[in-house]
Amino acid sequence: MSDYKVYSLGDVMLQSGMRIPDAKLAYKTYGTLNSAKDNVIVYPTWYSGQHYENEWLIGEDKAVDPRKYFIIVPNMFCNGLSSSPSNTPAPYGRARFPHVSAYDNVRMQHRLLAEVFGIEKIALVTGWSMGALQTFHWGAMYPEMVERILPFQGSAKCSRHNFVFLEGVKAALTADAAFLDGWYDVQPEKGLCAAARVYAGWGLSQTFYREKLDLEKLGYASLEDFLVGFWEGWLLAKDANNLLGMLWTWQYGDISNNEIYTGDFVKALSSIRAKAIVMPCKTDLYFPPEDSAFEVAHMPNAELRVVDSIWGHFAGGPGTSPVDIAVLDKALRELLAS
Amino acid sequence: MSDYKVYSLGDVMLQSGMRIPDAKLAYKTYGTLNSAKDNVIVYPTWYSGQHYENEWLIGEDKAVDPRKYFIIVPNMFCNGLSSSPSNTPAPYGRARFPHVSAYDNVRMQHRLLAEVFGIEKIALVTGWSMGALQTFHWGAMYPEMVERILPFQGSAKCSRHNFVFLEGVKAALTADAAFLDGWYDVQPEKGLCAAARVYAGWGLSQTFYREKLDLEKLGYASLEDFLVGFWEGWLLAKDANNLLGMLWTWQYGDISNNEIYTGDFVKALSSIRAKAIVMPCKTDLYFPPEDSAFEVAHMPNAELRVVDSIWGHFAGGPGTSPVDIAVLDKALRELLAS
Repeated sequence: MSDYKVYSLGDVMLQSGMRIPDAKLAYKTYGTLNSAKDNVIVYPTWYSGQHYENEWLIGEDKAVDPRKYFIIVPNMFCNGLSSSPSNTPAPYGRARFPHVSAYDNVRMQHRLLAEVFGIEKIALVTGWSMGALQTFHWGAMYPEMVERILPFQGSAKCSRHNFVFLEGVKAALTADAAFLDGWYDVQPEKGLCAAARVYAGWGLSQTFYREKLDLEKLGYASLEDFLVGFWEGWLLAKDANNLLGMLWTWQYGDISNNEIYTGDFVKALSSIRAKAIVMPCKTDLYFPPEDSAFEVAHMPNAELRVVDSIWGHFAGGPGTSPVDIAVLDKALRELLAS
Repeated sequence: MSDYKVYSLGDVMLQSGMRIPDAKLAYKTYGTLNSAKDNVIVYPTWYSGQHYENEWLIGEDKAVDPRKYFIIVPNMFCNGLSSSPSNTPAPYGRARFPHVSAYDNVRMQHRLLAEVFGIEKIALVTGWSMGALQTFHWGAMYPEMVERILPFQGSAKCSRHNFVFLEGVKAALTADAAFLDGWYDVQPEKGLCAAARVYAGWGLSQTFYREKLDLEKLGYASLEDFLVGFWEGWLLAKDANNLLGMLWTWQYGDISNNEIYTGDFVKALSSIRAKAIVMPCKTDLYFPPEDSAFEVAHMPNAELRVVDSIWGHFAGGPGTSPVDIAVLDKALRELLAS
C-alpha cells in the first residue's frame, strides 16, 4: 500500500556513459490534471528527501494548492524510491550504481510528464536545495515548456565552496571502515553519524546556534540532543550508498554541463525564459546570496529575493521555520498569479 | 639541537581534576628582556601550531620586533612540544592524557613568566585563533598585569556553532576504526584526511573559493590539489590524540569558566582592563564578527576592528594573506605605540 506510483523507464543511458537497467522513477501526484493540461507544478525532492518530505509546501491553504494545481513530485534517483544503489539488483546496485547527473534526473522527469501525462506546459517548477538545482535544470533544459520557476536555497551549479563542504561530508562517512567501499551488508552507522555531525554546522547559521533556536524553536533539550536527535537521526535512517550517490549528483550539478550548453554557464542561465524568483537565504552557509545574484544577473526574466532569516539553509526548508515558509509561500502565490 | 627551551612545571593539577605529571612547557623567546622588564610580548600558539609557526608576525620590519621587544611564544599543551598525549609516558599519555583548559594553559604560561623571568608587566598579548582564546584569557585572568591585547580571528568563549563545527572535525577523525579509541600505534591517516577535508570548507570563505584564491594566490594546481596538499598535508603531519586534545581545549574555552568568574561571561569580559583591539574577519565562518562585537561591547577599553577580507579565518593567519597581515601589523604597531 504505497502512496506513490512508479514509472518504468526501461534501460536508461546516463551522461556518465553507464546505464540504469530497468530504471524506475517513483513519483506522487496531488490534485487533478485539468483538460487544458496547463495547471502543472513540478516539485522535485531535496538531498535525501522522499516525496512525502516535500509536503510542507503543499496544501489547500497554500500557494501550491492541489485543488487548483496538478502537482507532481518526482523522487530523485538514489533517494531510495526511484532507482538507487539500495534497490537496484547486481551488477548495477550497491557500490556499482552509476553516477546520475541532475541533467539525467530532469530528462527522466520530462519523460514521465510527456509519456504518462502528455504534458507540454509547466506552470511552475519549484524546489528546495537540490530541488532548486533540478528546478534550474528544468528552466535551462526545457525553456519553452517551463513558464515559471522558484528555486529556493539552491543553485544552478555547485560552487567550489559547496563542493568542498560536501567533500567533508563524504570523507567523514567513508572514513568508517564498515563502509567497505560500498559493499557493506550493515550500514556504516559510525560514518553516518560523523557525516551528520559535519552537516550540522553547515545546515543552520551561526546566529541560529547563538540564539539557541535548536532549543527554543525545535524543542531539543540540549545541543548534544539536537546533534543526535535531529542530525544523526536524519542520516541513520538513510542508506550510505544512496547518500553518496545523491552527493555526487549535487557536486557535479551544473545546468551547462550537457550537450546543449557544452559548459557555457552564462549561456545556460541566459536561456532560461521562465519568469523566475530566486530565493537564497541571507545566512545560508553553502548557497550564499552572491551565487544567486550572479545567476539572476544572467537570467532574462528573474528577480533575486533574498530571505532575511537566521535559519540559514533551512529558511524555506522542510517545515522547520514557519515564518520563512510564509514568506516563500507568498512569493509562490505572487509568481503563480503573474 | 632544538630551537626552543622547555620549562619543567612539576606535577600540574588541572581544572578537570586530573594531573599532568612532570609537565613541560616548551617555549621560544625572541629578542632581549630589558632591565625594566617592560618590553614583553606574549604570543601563544594556535590550533596544532608550534612556536616556529607563529613567526610570520615577528621580524625587524614588523610591529612585533625582536630588537625592541622580548617576545615569548609558549607552546599550547597537546601541540606535541609542551606536554601532550604524544610525549607523556604511561599512564597519563596517549588516550589517557587529561583535558587541559585554556585557563590551565595560561596559568602555566604565567608561571613561566614569573618563575623563569620575573616578569610582572606584559606590554602586549596577541594571538590568532586559539591564540586569541589564550589572549583573552590573559586579559581576564591577569588584568593588572596585561597592558594591551590584540586577539585576531578568535573568541573569548567557544560559540555553540563553533562547537558544532568542531564536533564534525572530531567525528570525522574518530570514524576511522584505526583510531582505536586513541590507542593506535599507527596514525589513523584516513581519519586525519577526513578531518582535514571537513576543515577545508570552514577555514576559508565561500568567496575565497569562488575567486579561486587556492589556485591564484596559493599556487595549487586544482581544488583537489589544494585539499590534498594544503589541508590533508596539514593534519597528516600531526598526532591524532594531540589534535583531539587541543580540540577539547578549544570547545571548552571560556574566560569565565573558572573560580574567578564562575561562569559569568560578561563579568569576565568587563574585567579585562587591557587596551584592546579585537580583530575578527568579516568572512570568518567560525568566528563571525557578531561574537566579537558582543565581547567588545562588554570590555571597558576595547575597539572592534573588523578585517574586510575574503580570506575568512585565514585573514591574519600564518602568512597566507600578506595584504591582511599588513593591516594586522599596522594595528599592532598602533596599539603598541599607545
